[in-house]
Amino acid sequence: MPVSRRFFIASPPLLAMSAVGESVRLPKPVRCAVLGTVGHNSLLYDVLPRVEGLAITAVAEASPARLDRARKSPHHARASFYSDWRQMLRREELDMVMVGNDNGARAEALLACAARGLHCFAEKPVALNLEDLDRVNEAFSDHGGKPRLGCMLKMRTEPWALAIRDMVRSGALGQVIHVDSQKSYKYANQDDWKKSRASFGGTIQWIGIDMVDLMMWVTGQRFTPAGAHQAQIGMDAELGSMENTAAALFRMEGGGTATVRLDYLRSPKAPTHGDDRLRVAGTKGIAEWSDATGLRLQTAASAPAEIKDLPSEKSVALEFLKSTFLGAAPFVSQQEIIAATRATLEAAALARRS
Amino acid sequence: MPVSRRFFIASPPLLAMSAVGESVRLPKPVRCAVLGTVGHNSLLYDVLPRVEGLAITAVAEASPARLDRARKSPHHARASFYSDWRQMLRREELDMVMVGNDNGARAEALLACAARGLHCFAEKPVALNLEDLDRVNEAFSDHGGKPRLGCMLKMRTEPWALAIRDMVRSGALGQVIHVDSQKSYKYANQDDWKKSRASFGGTIQWIGIDMVDLMMWVTGQRFTPAGAHQAQIGMDAELGSMENTAAALFRMEGGGTATVRLDYLRSPKAPTHGDDRLRVAGTKGIAEWSDATGLRLQTAASAPAEIKDLPSEKSVALEFLKSTFLGAAPFVSQQEIIAATRATLEAAALARRS
Repeated sequence: MPVSRRFFIASPPLLAMSAVGESVRLPKPVRCAVLGTVGHNSLLYDVLPRVEGLAITAVAEASPARLDRARKSPHHARASFYSDWRQMLRREELDMVMVGNDNGARAEALLACAARGLHCFAEKPVALNLEDLDRVNEAFSDHGGKPRLGCMLKMRTEPWALAIRDMVRSGALGQVIHVDSQKSYKYANQDDWKKSRASFGGTIQWIGIDMVDLMMWVTGQRFTPAGAHQAQIGMDAELGSMENTAAALFRMEGGGTATVRLDYLRSPKAPTHGDDRLRVAGTKGIAEWSDATGLRLQTAASAPAEIKDLPSEKSVALEFLKSTFLGAAPFVSQQEIIAATRATLEAAALARRS
Repeated sequence: MPVSRRFFIASPPLLAMSAVGESVRLPKPVRCAVLGTVGHNSLLYDVLPRVEGLAITAVAEASPARLDRARKSPHHARASFYSDWRQMLRREELDMVMVGNDNGARAEALLACAARGLHCFAEKPVALNLEDLDRVNEAFSDHGGKPRLGCMLKMRTEPWALAIRDMVRSGALGQVIHVDSQKSYKYANQDDWKKSRASFGGTIQWIGIDMVDLMMWVTGQRFTPAGAHQAQIGMDAELGSMENTAAALFRMEGGGTATVRLDYLRSPKAPTHGDDRLRVAGTKGIAEWSDATGLRLQTAASAPAEIKDLPSEKSVALEFLKSTFLGAAPFVSQQEIIAATRATLEAAALARRS
């Protein structure tokens, strides 16, 4: 075991290797369009002041009310505005596109961008069916002449997630054979596009993918769905077709067990919007995160104890820019995006049959 | 909503209705045999001083070493001893039997006891396949002339479990649509009989049933398995065929989602042997137990807060005696025993196919 318990408990600088407040200078001016404003677009806006060379030059949004809001945003001060994203792609000279439209419209937009050679930083999921996923996978590449695909899989950037990933890689947990995660959200102020299956897809595809990707990334293992169930119960009028309870069970590549649990039942009075949890158990230790307990580690040699020194938060948008324009290795690789989306779509298909 | 938050948080006596230290006087002398000494037989021994009229009059144990230990136990001071339980049943005059043998031998012993009209307080699971389960179900009954079947499903007796059950029944959680539970154990001092599939069955059958029964009892809903996976990884020599990672996913009767997660990965240094957890989420609130956080409740009107006033612990053995000999309603009904065993056996069958 190369990494002792002391490594995790006592030494702040060792894990704090990522870059809070990191600034990036792009080698050439990059013109970025915003295609849809309902995604987690703030992931990019939040780092804009720290990126030299990136400009939002166009915004497309079909909803008049949202387009009006977009016109007033200081992030779009230098942008042209369109109600039709196809018109935007025809008229604008662009280098990349942030695809923040609804889930049902995403794959088509990504394919259109790829056909124009535009790199895409996309909301998840990148497709709502396996055929579209295959097309998206074919259209982009981490290597060679095709445009690059990024994805707003932001759970990976959490300090606790980075710490657990480090623990797994160091061998501190032994062979990981049991993983569980949870996303429990408040049901409040949900956008209308989430209430229709055509534009939303489903809860497993929307929030499940965050945890499926995180569990695969942290463990370094692919997952195969072995069961799933979802339902929408007791809140019909408000929820539309959006499921408020869901779970999926996976067989891990190494033979272990993984589960993800999703609900929209969190108290509106709770201190945070989401109650995210991750528990990663191996033959030599268990690491676990929740809001209520913080990050806790137990090993064969040590009782459960809180780990307080965590790595700095990363930015999934900044990492996309670094890999696309500065030659850095992808923080979220295309292969990983496709694998997480595929596992999630397959789990959702099982849930529809259950 | 008939029950306010104040009910749970402020008033100790209201929930403390069960009987710690309760004494029971049986209406006639009851002669009890012990058939096998590897179960959680202490559940009965612990209450023996508080039961008037109950005597352990015979003990059968095939293992010479365990029979020798049994001879020295003060609980067996008035007992005859047998290495063959069939011989014991032939020779002894009995009223009930505590069936604490290995899992693989249980159904046959139960059926032999039932054929002699003997009430049985049994370790779980009561059978390792559905055919035997049907036979056991047919042989006993909560009503009428057949002997009564009890089961060591002791999770229900935990103060936090009783409290969560009360919350659900009071309507404080609304309609329950999402349930999750965990059992994470230390792997230490496991008996040899657990290392063979024939005598053990599997981890889902052995520890999963505790949580499956608890989730069904707390919610008042039956579960149908929708997926399961189990494996034994990284500890081969020690574990025999015993799985150290397992999970199962269920569709709840009302359409909701339930999961159970099982592992033998807990640190030997942890303060307790097991890290039991239960999370019950409904349309109006979420109740949750873990060692690390205690019992917590959040509702539509209240942020997550710890509930400290819990009911007193019950005794599953005492409840069996009360229902069998004093006419009380069963605390663990035969229908519930059969339903939990069936769901667990079906989940284990899914896991074998995954």
